[in-house]
Amino acid sequence: MRKIFLIGMGPGGLKYLTAQAIATLRKVDVFFLLDKPGRGKAELGDARRRILDLYRGPGAYRIITAESPPRPPAQDDYLDVVADWHARKAEILSTLFETHLAEGETGGVLVWGDPAFYDSSIAILRRIQAEHPGKFEVEVTPAVSSLNLLAARHAISLHEIGGDLLVTTARRLLAGGAKNFDSVVVMLDSNAAFARIDPEDFHIYWGAYLGTEHEVLRSGPLADIGPALAETVRREKERHGWILDIYLLRRGAATAPAS
Amino acid sequence: MRKIFLIGMGPGGLKYLTAQAIATLRKVDVFFLLDKPGRGKAELGDARRRILDLYRGPGAYRIITAESPPRPPAQDDYLDVVADWHARKAEILSTLFETHLAEGETGGVLVWGDPAFYDSSIAILRRIQAEHPGKFEVEVTPAVSSLNLLAARHAISLHEIGGDLLVTTARRLLAGGAKNFDSVVVMLDSNAAFARIDPEDFHIYWGAYLGTEHEVLRSGPLADIGPALAETVRREKERHGWILDIYLLRRGAATAPAS
Repeated sequence: MRKIFLIGMGPGGLKYLTAQAIATLRKVDVFFLLDKPGRGKAELGDARRRILDLYRGPGAYRIITAESPPRPPAQDDYLDVVADWHARKAEILSTLFETHLAEGETGGVLVWGDPAFYDSSIAILRRIQAEHPGKFEVEVTPAVSSLNLLAARHAISLHEIGGDLLVTTARRLLAGGAKNFDSVVVMLDSNAAFARIDPEDFHIYWGAYLGTEHEVLRSGPLADIGPALAETVRREKERHGWILDIYLLRRGAATAPAS
Repeated sequence: MRKIFLIGMGPGGLKYLTAQAIATLRKVDVFFLLDKPGRGKAELGDARRRILDLYRGPGAYRIITAESPPRPPAQDDYLDVVADWHARKAEILSTLFETHLAEGETGGVLVWGDPAFYDSSIAILRRIQAEHPGKFEVEVTPAVSSLNLLAARHAISLHEIGGDLLVTTARRLLAGGAKNFDSVVVMLDSNAAFARIDPEDFHIYWGAYLGTEHEVLRSGPLADIGPALAETVRREKERHGWILDIYLLRRGAATAPAS
């Protein structure tokens, strides 16, 4: 039995780490990193190294890095493509675990944000457990998610009093997913889907690169600021080569608190 | 201008505090606590004191405590009752700020969990800002929320691949709120609303007193474990005098990962 810690780092590096995450980092013998080619690779890699440098001395741990398999572009076959991509990542990771982790040693996988929101690590580790019964124990360390940080930066609640919150994707937003909801958080966008829906009376609270030195915040009635915000998305993507953004759509622009 | 920090403590005390929350705690001159009478009062108060004892020496800060006004029971007038309750809390807090916070001093309000999810502190501070323009600056420190912790303890993602997550209340669940959703997190229950809906093929991942020494976790097909789990809720409430629980309903019991 080898123990794998899935450690949520929260958004934006050092300052959002919890006391528990720091204590867990210190128990890890081998960190496994699947580097994503492309967007944000350098920044995310740097943040991980800064965290390990600060909380673990050099030489006290090992890092095993592998290239993450590229995710093929998906259209209607979205779920199949993602499932296949997870299968390949699971194969790579389980081979790394078996090669580099001695019996009784502890592995660590660092996850940006919180592992429970739009991250594939839990699904991949579950798959590895299912394919290698009794070999790996998994423990997850929760973290501040980008939802929590978005709300904090705008000093807003994520929902109306006693109301619902829908957390969804840009893909689903474009398919009409925000209809009938007062509060909708959209993740996995990066292409300004908010500018391609009926703005109704939505207020948008938007943030990109949250918690990093490149953080950008905007808010206002979607009908008014949508087009300029889409241009901001385009410009920031061009400048950094990638963008990671998230936003809350809140119905009732007139009563929404300013920020 | 006086600065008020709204500091998310995360669920369950010390170990879920972020580095940022700890650094922010150290900047506060006066902590303002509105003690809720009744459920969990002693436990939550103790956790706050443990945090302050650990990260601030005695004498380095002041604590101002007031009794939170009791929330009248609400039925159809839910929103009116809550708005009125917020107004009274805002009045109490703003009077405390003006009485105990000198110009240039910094106030702190500690929030259990993350301030953006089902907590009234942001709404109350917004109201105080609106009623006293230019007098108070508010900065929010995000935290791990009970959603993140629930998912971590069960080692699950909160949604299907590329899917939605609905975050809702027991009140709305009973009104049919889970229909048409694959993943639903229910908060503000404490009366086992899950046992009074059609269980369909939902799998339930449930947790109470998350992150504390009294933590209880259960999971399984809702149709199978719902009645026993409702009995667990009743028994735990009786034992502690209060309960704080949260759960994820995930459609497709057969394919849900075990935990």
